[in-house]
Amino acid sequence: MVAATQKATHEQTKNHNKRLILKTIYDQPETSRADIARMTGLTRPTVSSNVAELIEEGLVEEIGQGQSEGGKPPILLSVVDDSRHLIAIDLADSEFQGAVVDLRGRVIHRECLPVNDSDGEAALQVVYELGDRLITAATRPLVGIGIGAPGLIDAQEGIVRKAVNLDWQDLPLRDWLKTRYGLPVHIANDGHVAALGEYIFGQVRKTPNLVILKVGRGVIAGIVLNGRLHYGDGSGAGEIGHVKVVEEGVLCRCGHRGCLETVTNSRAIVERARRIAESDPDSTLHYLASRLEAINLERVLQAFLAGDKTLQPIITEVGCYLGMAVAHLVGVLNVQCVLICGNVARFGEPLLQPIRQEMRQRSLAMLANQTYVGLSNLGQDIVLQGAAALLLANELGLV
Amino acid sequence: MVAATQKATHEQTKNHNKRLILKTIYDQPETSRADIARMTGLTRPTVSSNVAELIEEGLVEEIGQGQSEGGKPPILLSVVDDSRHLIAIDLADSEFQGAVVDLRGRVIHRECLPVNDSDGEAALQVVYELGDRLITAATRPLVGIGIGAPGLIDAQEGIVRKAVNLDWQDLPLRDWLKTRYGLPVHIANDGHVAALGEYIFGQVRKTPNLVILKVGRGVIAGIVLNGRLHYGDGSGAGEIGHVKVVEEGVLCRCGHRGCLETVTNSRAIVERARRIAESDPDSTLHYLASRLEAINLERVLQAFLAGDKTLQPIITEVGCYLGMAVAHLVGVLNVQCVLICGNVARFGEPLLQPIRQEMRQRSLAMLANQTYVGLSNLGQDIVLQGAAALLLANELGLV
Repeated sequence: MVAATQKATHEQTKNHNKRLILKTIYDQPETSRADIARMTGLTRPTVSSNVAELIEEGLVEEIGQGQSEGGKPPILLSVVDDSRHLIAIDLADSEFQGAVVDLRGRVIHRECLPVNDSDGEAALQVVYELGDRLITAATRPLVGIGIGAPGLIDAQEGIVRKAVNLDWQDLPLRDWLKTRYGLPVHIANDGHVAALGEYIFGQVRKTPNLVILKVGRGVIAGIVLNGRLHYGDGSGAGEIGHVKVVEEGVLCRCGHRGCLETVTNSRAIVERARRIAESDPDSTLHYLASRLEAINLERVLQAFLAGDKTLQPIITEVGCYLGMAVAHLVGVLNVQCVLICGNVARFGEPLLQPIRQEMRQRSLAMLANQTYVGLSNLGQDIVLQGAAALLLANELGLV
Repeated sequence: MVAATQKATHEQTKNHNKRLILKTIYDQPETSRADIARMTGLTRPTVSSNVAELIEEGLVEEIGQGQSEGGKPPILLSVVDDSRHLIAIDLADSEFQGAVVDLRGRVIHRECLPVNDSDGEAALQVVYELGDRLITAATRPLVGIGIGAPGLIDAQEGIVRKAVNLDWQDLPLRDWLKTRYGLPVHIANDGHVAALGEYIFGQVRKTPNLVILKVGRGVIAGIVLNGRLHYGDGSGAGEIGHVKVVEEGVLCRCGHRGCLETVTNSRAIVERARRIAESDPDSTLHYLASRLEAINLERVLQAFLAGDKTLQPIITEVGCYLGMAVAHLVGVLNVQCVLICGNVARFGEPLLQPIRQEMRQRSLAMLANQTYVGLSNLGQDIVLQGAAALLLANELGLV
């Protein structure tokens, strides 16, 4: 809106043009100055002077000659993928993950620190420790730090409004990290950045309308509309994990009963699996349960993938509930691409089938039939990739 | 996206500047050339020559002198509200409504034609008859024809993909009307244009994120995000009327059972009221029912507003179901302004109360507490106003 009602100043224009040129080079495997001029509508001298600056800064390089179209063969340009490093951090799970990645989101170095039951100040210290290690591991100039965090995150102000699991409230994490590291920092909800990661690095790259349903400890949807992340007025878009789906259901950590999260998150699956393991001798987890060994999501998943039939009803039921949620997403947004990610997505096709079936039975056929429901191929790195995408978008204009 | 990757040509720039200037004048009660230059960042000569053209075209007029800020007092400019007429058409209900309106959406002339059970070709003839009458009634140069229609409407292509009640399928209504009248025509779903109407002419004007829930014969949400109507990939955004809310519910015209529409639309209310009227002698409609007189929504509404307590449970139940839907809207979109419109909205506060209550019990408290649920003040004209807004947006760039 601002763009439409304000004429750009010279400095803004220059910056805009340079970003536009960098983005054009980034989006093509290889391109020439003439291509850029054609694609952007900018003049050749403007393209040339900006490309010279980008080469000078090491972000772009000349990679050889292209096909001649009559005259002198053009010199091809490409972004130098490892000319910068980005720090990407995922605070959504019981271990904090971090990575140094290059401009294409390729992981150069990883760090992982257990949070266990740390919260408040202690959890913050784990973030600092993670940040310190990653900064040390980076070997290129840093673009900044991108973070995906659970809960209500005000991305604009860089404040964690409320993260129940970490017992953080109104925590100005962005500014504290900025001060500590002297780098640009961007932070957003883990589901939100996951959607951005999918939009930039995923198999459905640049699909303008896209929903990522992240199902792990929490259940959250990340929504990209017209190529832009939809945060919501209170930073809470996609908080479908706390919409009631079971009347008189179990108590949720949000204070309500029967939220979607209570019947679909990793904890719900583990608890149901534990009950089955205890009571059903056919369960491959029965022996573990009787030995009081810990049954966790990883073990449930391994048992399920190995063919333990006693677990199928759990996954079917989780899929049905998720399918109800997807039906509402279809009804509200009519977005034709819905991808599931997060720990629970690892149950794969047996989880997708009931999701698809419920979606079709519970929403307008013409819309449901056009809606693809699948798995994200970014796997467990989706939030890291998304955190990197958040940085690329905000610092380099590459989204 | 196109705008960001293409440099504007001279002609586009000129057009863009003129629209920007018109919009600036339209958005202020009064403004001067200097104000416009300041607000748009355009040069004074550019502003002056474009304003001269707009005055020449009769769209803008000089309305006197403003306060001097030292030098010569500025000449104030204003849009001439009745310099153009717009034809607005609402095909969503059992009577087709049409109006000639001015540039502020004020109704100059109305027409209304019963559709009864006409469909297919017969219903199309009613549209033509309505169009003919409105064109005749207009007394100013016409901007064009804007239409809100029920069902899946491809606004980009101007095609009615599917309107069950009218038995229209893949009907190129825009092009047929363009050919018949030689005027620009724009068409979109009635719920979608209602949201646009609210955005331009409603009490929450220019609230960038906004949901209009239209409850009448159909139940549809119109969604404005970042000041733009969200149509959805298949033109079906907001089709929440066909999301299942009752397991094993009654058959819906969409082919599924238990859709939101089946328990909240005007027909559902009338049918329940009829059953109560027949069986409960306390019902003020009992006498009518025993006389086999038609019980319709209007009579139910009048009885309810006159204090008939037997109808309260119906309205409470309808409100509860709508509240469930609003909880999902809050969860998905986190839009803080949800307005109810359509025939059923006329039940007023007694309908709003259960909606608000269910929304709060069924979605994250922090988000629900920030969400305003109220009635649109555009009343029964909201689709007409929206159809006019659709034209203003597309033909004059005033949105």
